[in-house]
Amino acid sequence: MPDETITPPAEELVRALEAEDQSAILSIAGAMHYADLSQVYQELESERHEVFLKSIGPEIAADMIVQLPDSMIEEALDHFGPGQLKILFRELSDDDRVDILQAVGDEPRLRFLGLLGPEDEELTRSLLRYEHDTAGGRMTTRFGRIFASMTVKQAIDHLRRDQENTETLARLFVVDARGHLIGRVRLRDLAFNTWDTPIRDIMAEVGPEQRVLATADQEEAANLLLRYDLIVLPVVDEFDHLLGMITHDDAMEILQEESTEDIEKQAGIVGEQAEESYLQSTVLTHFKRRFVWLFGLALLAIASGYVMMRFEDTLMQVFLLSLYLPMVVASGGNTGGQASTMVIRAMSLGELGPGSASRVLWKELRLGAMLGLLLGLTIATITVLILPAFRPQLPEGVSYLLFGATVAAALSAQVVTSTCIGALLPIGARAIRLDPAAVAAPAITTLVDVSGMVIYFTVAQALLGL
Amino acid sequence: MPDETITPPAEELVRALEAEDQSAILSIAGAMHYADLSQVYQELESERHEVFLKSIGPEIAADMIVQLPDSMIEEALDHFGPGQLKILFRELSDDDRVDILQAVGDEPRLRFLGLLGPEDEELTRSLLRYEHDTAGGRMTTRFGRIFASMTVKQAIDHLRRDQENTETLARLFVVDARGHLIGRVRLRDLAFNTWDTPIRDIMAEVGPEQRVLATADQEEAANLLLRYDLIVLPVVDEFDHLLGMITHDDAMEILQEESTEDIEKQAGIVGEQAEESYLQSTVLTHFKRRFVWLFGLALLAIASGYVMMRFEDTLMQVFLLSLYLPMVVASGGNTGGQASTMVIRAMSLGELGPGSASRVLWKELRLGAMLGLLLGLTIATITVLILPAFRPQLPEGVSYLLFGATVAAALSAQVVTSTCIGALLPIGARAIRLDPAAVAAPAITTLVDVSGMVIYFTVAQALLGL
Repeated sequence: MPDETITPPAEELVRALEAEDQSAILSIAGAMHYADLSQVYQELESERHEVFLKSIGPEIAADMIVQLPDSMIEEALDHFGPGQLKILFRELSDDDRVDILQAVGDEPRLRFLGLLGPEDEELTRSLLRYEHDTAGGRMTTRFGRIFASMTVKQAIDHLRRDQENTETLARLFVVDARGHLIGRVRLRDLAFNTWDTPIRDIMAEVGPEQRVLATADQEEAANLLLRYDLIVLPVVDEFDHLLGMITHDDAMEILQEESTEDIEKQAGIVGEQAEESYLQSTVLTHFKRRFVWLFGLALLAIASGYVMMRFEDTLMQVFLLSLYLPMVVASGGNTGGQASTMVIRAMSLGELGPGSASRVLWKELRLGAMLGLLLGLTIATITVLILPAFRPQLPEGVSYLLFGATVAAALSAQVVTSTCIGALLPIGARAIRLDPAAVAAPAITTLVDVSGMVIYFTVAQALLGL
Repeated sequence: MPDETITPPAEELVRALEAEDQSAILSIAGAMHYADLSQVYQELESERHEVFLKSIGPEIAADMIVQLPDSMIEEALDHFGPGQLKILFRELSDDDRVDILQAVGDEPRLRFLGLLGPEDEELTRSLLRYEHDTAGGRMTTRFGRIFASMTVKQAIDHLRRDQENTETLARLFVVDARGHLIGRVRLRDLAFNTWDTPIRDIMAEVGPEQRVLATADQEEAANLLLRYDLIVLPVVDEFDHLLGMITHDDAMEILQEESTEDIEKQAGIVGEQAEESYLQSTVLTHFKRRFVWLFGLALLAIASGYVMMRFEDTLMQVFLLSLYLPMVVASGGNTGGQASTMVIRAMSLGELGPGSASRVLWKELRLGAMLGLLLGLTIATITVLILPAFRPQLPEGVSYLLFGATVAAALSAQVVTSTCIGALLPIGARAIRLDPAAVAAPAITTLVDVSGMVIYFTVAQALLGL
């Protein structure tokens, strides 16, 4: 974990910004990486945005603006006039341009599209058809594409002409005359082979599983890149025409975003985090994302209270039961949360196919039984050994041993039930095509609170003869 | 999320394995990606491992074995004799070889080291000095290294000789005569420049922040690759000598592993998941990872029970309090869990520097106040409107309005307190150099259960005059 978010050149830049020294700003910013520039920009008071952007100009600003959270993009672009925006949009790769246009409102989107050259405009419009979170929405169309019928020399000449236009030359894709993806070569295969070698002879095949449909979810694309250790993944349409590619850096971002989303969902936090960081988001944004679950779960928790009310008599007869009540109830929430977390993570890493539900349940059932039994036995032993020292009131005919056995039985039953509920809920959610990660751990906790109350008081009534 | 974990060629392979048809196994496996091969191997009964490995031979097995979970590696290697192991280890890149040797026991490690050639053995021993989870433990030393004093032609000749030995040529690093890292060039810069161009003229600088110390945590390296959109990150020693590099595919794996670890820790699941998938881990492994927290939290929960016992009289006087007890207590756990999740995730994404504690606390305090007030008001309103219809017993002098106000006040106080506790605990953990992610959400839940009981009964005593 990095301990410092501000690097020394960033501090110099901040000083230059405070002094409004345009030439110093330009010279410091020009030597910095756009990721660092974007961080400085985000931490700046908004009155300084104007001088920052004017000083660095549209060329440097272009890459920096791509790195900003979606909510800050439109404001940043507003500091430039039409002529400068033309330059800025020309600087951007096609997928970055699309990302930016997806982040702004409808009116500015149309206005910005009008600033692009006719070719860029057509390409951008066609890319805007894909949803932001699909492979097509993430792909770049700037990549090295060569024909199988070329020789190495023809390919190099072709790429040299096209050099400006390609985002990565580390992997080059080979298509047939009709644009179908048929193979790939590496730049080194060109550099280290004689000039008359036919591309067809040196290309490697691209397996049917090492490509992704433009309409597929972005997470599927990222998982393929991860699984097959790829630098780039080709994106195709349903007829296998090569449309674009997704690069390793997009894949890393996608995986981080999806992990964050999963983690937040499981804590009962809803909605898109977009690209805003924790500190950038307003209190109101955080509030909206957290209140829904909090309120729903509060209402649900009244069910637990209702069960407790119903068992008023039982509790009155043996008030000592209340000493163990939170433990029995909470252990269910804890173990249910563990089970659901494990199952949800395994699902999002693609480890659990749809056929594995019964294997998961069998595993969690045994696990729940082991956890429940050991926990029950331990707590019962501690109870029988320690409790008598405090001389608590027990009704006639109820021994410490019987009381300990009651707590143990209820605890075991609660842990087994909760483990299975925790494992089953995400599987059930997926079966009805809901997102398993949306089965938040707090929801499971609250749910098994209710079952825990019922189990505890029912077992107590039965075993203690109340 | 992929719906199928087995692809059609994998099914063919499984059939060939069942028929023990060695030549079919070899021909199908030879055309498959090692990631897919490894998955088939992991899902196979262990009696079939022998025929699988013998059929594919050490060359194909090498890359497959690297992909196996650590716990399966030693057994897989045991199927080969010394001669075949020599071939297998020669096939591996140096970082993969080190990974494998780190996964096996001390005795086989020494035996395997003896099978390497003298040069490989020395290199491997020097890499084994770095911990597995550091940049040095993850780096490869097979990379393109050229000298600033070379021309393009000399560099190409040098790389051509060394071609076998380099894992990626997409980025080449430039060192000075004493091995200090001073720049990088891309293969395309060589391919598209005239042969007499000096490397010094075409190389790009590598900023001081775009390199990582060999002793740094692997997560730091992965975050740098992510931040700067790099394909490879150079690894240096404290004198800035270039030692190796970390590739984008390692970075993706590191980020996934760390996310999984964070997610599991926050659910109270301890220990290394290693590289085993959910279904591969035995029930006993899962049991060990879950029991510790479960047991500790169960003991802690007795504190809540103790508080409840102490307030027996209060509860007896107004048993209606029990209807809202789970809600007040659970709302604290939910909101505390949300706060800690947000803060921990922001920390592991590097968004919160050490100086931001007060900003986080201020944000969560306002957030807790908003959540608590709105939640309290809503629940009070519902209570005052609906409760009278059920004609519950209230002590003399306690109106529905007063009762509703009591619940609301306790709920608000509990939510504010818990939100701050949830945000402060991970910050505190980091301040005393503990892993913030180890502050598991269930621990926070159990902790604020206790505070919730105290708050609820104290507020009730005060406002209801009990």
